[in-house]
Amino acid sequence: MVEGVHFNPGWGTAAMLGARALNINLSDIAAMGGRPTVCVINLAIRPGLHARFFEELYRGLGKAAVAAGVSVVGGNITRAREFAITVALLGEVESQPMRRDSARPGDKIYVTGSVGDAALGLRILQNKVAASGSARDYLVRRFLQPTAQVAAGRKLSRIKPAPATIDISDGLWQDLGHVLERSEVGAKVDSTALPISAAYRRVYGDNCELALSGGDDYELLFCLRTPLSEAELSRRLGVKVRCIGEITRDKQALLVSATGEAATVRNHGWDQLRAT
Amino acid sequence: MVEGVHFNPGWGTAAMLGARALNINLSDIAAMGGRPTVCVINLAIRPGLHARFFEELYRGLGKAAVAAGVSVVGGNITRAREFAITVALLGEVESQPMRRDSARPGDKIYVTGSVGDAALGLRILQNKVAASGSARDYLVRRFLQPTAQVAAGRKLSRIKPAPATIDISDGLWQDLGHVLERSEVGAKVDSTALPISAAYRRVYGDNCELALSGGDDYELLFCLRTPLSEAELSRRLGVKVRCIGEITRDKQALLVSATGEAATVRNHGWDQLRAT
Repeated sequence: MVEGVHFNPGWGTAAMLGARALNINLSDIAAMGGRPTVCVINLAIRPGLHARFFEELYRGLGKAAVAAGVSVVGGNITRAREFAITVALLGEVESQPMRRDSARPGDKIYVTGSVGDAALGLRILQNKVAASGSARDYLVRRFLQPTAQVAAGRKLSRIKPAPATIDISDGLWQDLGHVLERSEVGAKVDSTALPISAAYRRVYGDNCELALSGGDDYELLFCLRTPLSEAELSRRLGVKVRCIGEITRDKQALLVSATGEAATVRNHGWDQLRAT
Repeated sequence: MVEGVHFNPGWGTAAMLGARALNINLSDIAAMGGRPTVCVINLAIRPGLHARFFEELYRGLGKAAVAAGVSVVGGNITRAREFAITVALLGEVESQPMRRDSARPGDKIYVTGSVGDAALGLRILQNKVAASGSARDYLVRRFLQPTAQVAAGRKLSRIKPAPATIDISDGLWQDLGHVLERSEVGAKVDSTALPISAAYRRVYGDNCELALSGGDDYELLFCLRTPLSEAELSRRLGVKVRCIGEITRDKQALLVSATGEAATVRNHGWDQLRAT
């Protein structure tokens, strides 16, 4: 997490920043169905940030680590011109990790929680989108205080055959694209089925662009061969789950609109290395 | 390793930079007597560095990893305003890791290889010190292409009682200070016994300042209770070893000069966070 690229120290508290740095990493473990174990932290610090800021950051990170059963076993501090936190996190899987390359035509595609909230929260923090009240609070919190779906990921990994799974960090459409590419398949996604929160709708209306392309949600997307209802899956995983479409043989991603029109959608998720 | 703080991409090849990033981390494993196993790499990349540069960097790092028996199992690439490489490396110890807090009065203090070369090489690269010919080549190489003392560290860890050990990354005097502080002891160091290379002498004469305070050597400093000759230790560890002094009960570090004068030396090793 690099200052100015991934966060602005003024947006939330240092404790939130520490917890977020861990959760972003926990999310990768969640997507493999793993149990996180230990981590090391590298802090690149710049002039102008005080000891109290880092104490707060470590406090937040430490609390999130305890909650996740992770031991912080070491780290390093270095001088830099820009502030950055790098977390290396280890985890273990019971048998095999869930993969991205195991999606097959006919699999149903599911998403946990809701998507687009964090991207909208980020735009609110950047003053690009106006919002107020509880909707603003919820959306901003979804960006600043994400919670990785570690427990859901572990439960998911016990379903056989193991679902192709990825965490939504770069945006639903882009992360789905990674699964399709690695699995050499396509997908048909129902835009009306996207799990969009009430707060998102209140602030952004029916525009599902950020639900498709926004990153930082840290929800899970998975492809299931065994048909299970949303209700049954939600119960099993302990988190709300929505079916958003199906894996197809054609190597393209189709988005079906409310009127039933299908369109291929250009991958426009957040690319880390895209020029800004 | 942060551009502009720890290195300048123009100094050596990208392959050297990659190998160095790994060796700096290997050195911490060496100081504990460990066997390095796997690593993950985080690259923070900025505009202006091309794909070929990173291919070269990975090639150098990969070659160093193979040589050290390390598997590169993952990593991350992120956008930043300054280029940085972060390596998290795992290792295992046979029984107990060597520690910094186990030095006792009467222990002899030893150093592998020679000290000050890398610091002098850095100053040559920065045009702060003039040098030419083979001495220049050797000193610059000592900075750009350090080799962690992993094999020596493992052999050292089999000596019982396990020697208090640290790698010399911040400078001999400062790193010795870490051992003294953690072990709650002092030391008497013979300045005439410091292992200084012929190249160092040719460029810097009898000035042992950089041998004491210069960092980046990645040699090992250790404190041995069982008396062993330099020749016997060098043979056992497979690297030249020099006895530079003794651990004392007084909690101070004394440097004894050629004329026999003893002086307490202010810790002036390289402090990462020192304002420049």
